[in-house]
Amino acid sequence: MAQLGEFGLIRRYFERPVRDPQVALGVGDDAAVVRVAPQCELVLAVDMMVESRHFLVDADPASLGHKVLAVNLSDIAAMGARPRWALLAGALPDGDERWLEAFSRGLFALADAHGVELIGGDTTRGPRNLCLTIAGEIPRGEAIRRSGAAAGDDIWVSGSLGDAMLALAALQRRTALDAPAMAQARRRLDWPTPRVALGQALRGLASAMLDVSDGLAGDLAHLLEASNVGAVVELSSVPRSPALAAKLEGSERALALDCLLAGGDDYELCFTAPSTRRDDVLKLGTPDTPLARIGSITPTIGELVVHDEQGEPISSLPRGFDHFA
Amino acid sequence: MAQLGEFGLIRRYFERPVRDPQVALGVGDDAAVVRVAPQCELVLAVDMMVESRHFLVDADPASLGHKVLAVNLSDIAAMGARPRWALLAGALPDGDERWLEAFSRGLFALADAHGVELIGGDTTRGPRNLCLTIAGEIPRGEAIRRSGAAAGDDIWVSGSLGDAMLALAALQRRTALDAPAMAQARRRLDWPTPRVALGQALRGLASAMLDVSDGLAGDLAHLLEASNVGAVVELSSVPRSPALAAKLEGSERALALDCLLAGGDDYELCFTAPSTRRDDVLKLGTPDTPLARIGSITPTIGELVVHDEQGEPISSLPRGFDHFA
Repeated sequence: MAQLGEFGLIRRYFERPVRDPQVALGVGDDAAVVRVAPQCELVLAVDMMVESRHFLVDADPASLGHKVLAVNLSDIAAMGARPRWALLAGALPDGDERWLEAFSRGLFALADAHGVELIGGDTTRGPRNLCLTIAGEIPRGEAIRRSGAAAGDDIWVSGSLGDAMLALAALQRRTALDAPAMAQARRRLDWPTPRVALGQALRGLASAMLDVSDGLAGDLAHLLEASNVGAVVELSSVPRSPALAAKLEGSERALALDCLLAGGDDYELCFTAPSTRRDDVLKLGTPDTPLARIGSITPTIGELVVHDEQGEPISSLPRGFDHFA
Repeated sequence: MAQLGEFGLIRRYFERPVRDPQVALGVGDDAAVVRVAPQCELVLAVDMMVESRHFLVDADPASLGHKVLAVNLSDIAAMGARPRWALLAGALPDGDERWLEAFSRGLFALADAHGVELIGGDTTRGPRNLCLTIAGEIPRGEAIRRSGAAAGDDIWVSGSLGDAMLALAALQRRTALDAPAMAQARRRLDWPTPRVALGQALRGLASAMLDVSDGLAGDLAHLLEASNVGAVVELSSVPRSPALAAKLEGSERALALDCLLAGGDDYELCFTAPSTRRDDVLKLGTPDTPLARIGSITPTIGELVVHDEQGEPISSLPRGFDHFA
């Protein structure tokens, strides 16, 4: 197809009227120009998704449009910031307009839900690769870093963990799920929900925060390292779906533990807060975004202990995801 | 190799002490945090480079590190802005440390030359793909857009055009160059020089500007369209290297014309300015960055006429590069 050419494709699927008055210049020049609100800092992140590694060749393009933005929104949420602007660079094997239409539909639906404007990008031919840069705003000095956790702080996790990896394991026939459980788990894998409102609500409350993208154990280890502290986590408190809970109690416990503690792609928030603020944190939980207190920060630098249901330390924790390990 | 893992590789090759006081938080958290200077707007662009499309499998990794930043600096230059911060996302087939060391060396040498800080990124495994996002600053309202050209304005080009495509043609054995000419042309292809200082010097002087990345005819057509004007260009005034000039006068004229008018990868600036400001523009030329006046803006919307050496219009202009045409 691709009779439109690169510039025609960009225009048809990615140029829309700009509604944000802080965007001085959007798609179509050498660069975009935006105005950061007074007293705000700019928060920037980038995430790249590669075919056959982050998604399958036949993945629903609408879900890819959603997901490439969602994983970036999750990074912005993990700073407590408000997402504002996105730039999209994509390598595509062809100019398939059906794919582009669905992809841009998925992308813009989530962008509109969060008031994010697509202000620039780049398209080229190549093995399919989607790279999105996100910019957000936060009042000066209020960004929630990984480095602020203190001994005695509670450790919290939003939503539930492990379903995205559980769906992947089922797709790879390493486990089986009944149809309703599979539908729910695949929704977590393909259409993750970034916790954008929660992230902003935690400003001034969370002492440290990150999003769970590589697995709880690995991500929490990053937070502990940045904060120079340790942690004790109670496995029984780590939130899980009913399907994952069932596997944890059965013959597939090893897989289920892997999903819960090292499953990537969850995009929940993991944060710490002083135990004196426990009630304030609990008030931020909603039926859609429950909050679970999973443990406490300890003074033992870098040590992560996870207690099993009997209160015994789990001897070898599954590792988080590493593209080059 | 890759025994270091993803996070170890990032730390070893891409984390450096931050020197810019406007960077509140650099590499190592979910996102970076920066402070845009008061009274400044933020300028954002992204460019993606794909192996086998933008560079060869055996390309010098140091030149790739240079080039992926250079093409982005060129976009910032084309707005008249000052480059400040970069985020790098990369897909790599392996964790080859020799490659990474050379790549980061090329990247940081150019970054240091322009005071650019690398503040974030993402690495993953996949077909080699380099995606760099650049952020710059410009005093509010001073960005030089593509849309400001007016009938009667002069059209200018920096440096010389066509050598990058000439080098590529020689590499593909579509033409031959003697060793010194090849060395010079390859330098233009592999180590392009973004015109960062010139771009900023043109604030308040250029009425419209873009960088020549897809070829003069195609890029100038974008400027004409954005400005609702036309142009007449004198081929004899379009700046070229001695090697390209020789080919233009010989049996390879068609190839040479293609290089000069439709050769991508030049990263020179093409801009318009009122003819009353001609002397002010000429003062900005230097031995390293000469400026050539190549024609004038006309009121004929969208029409680009290029006169040959005899003053006759060239009947079919070579097209600019389009990844999906």
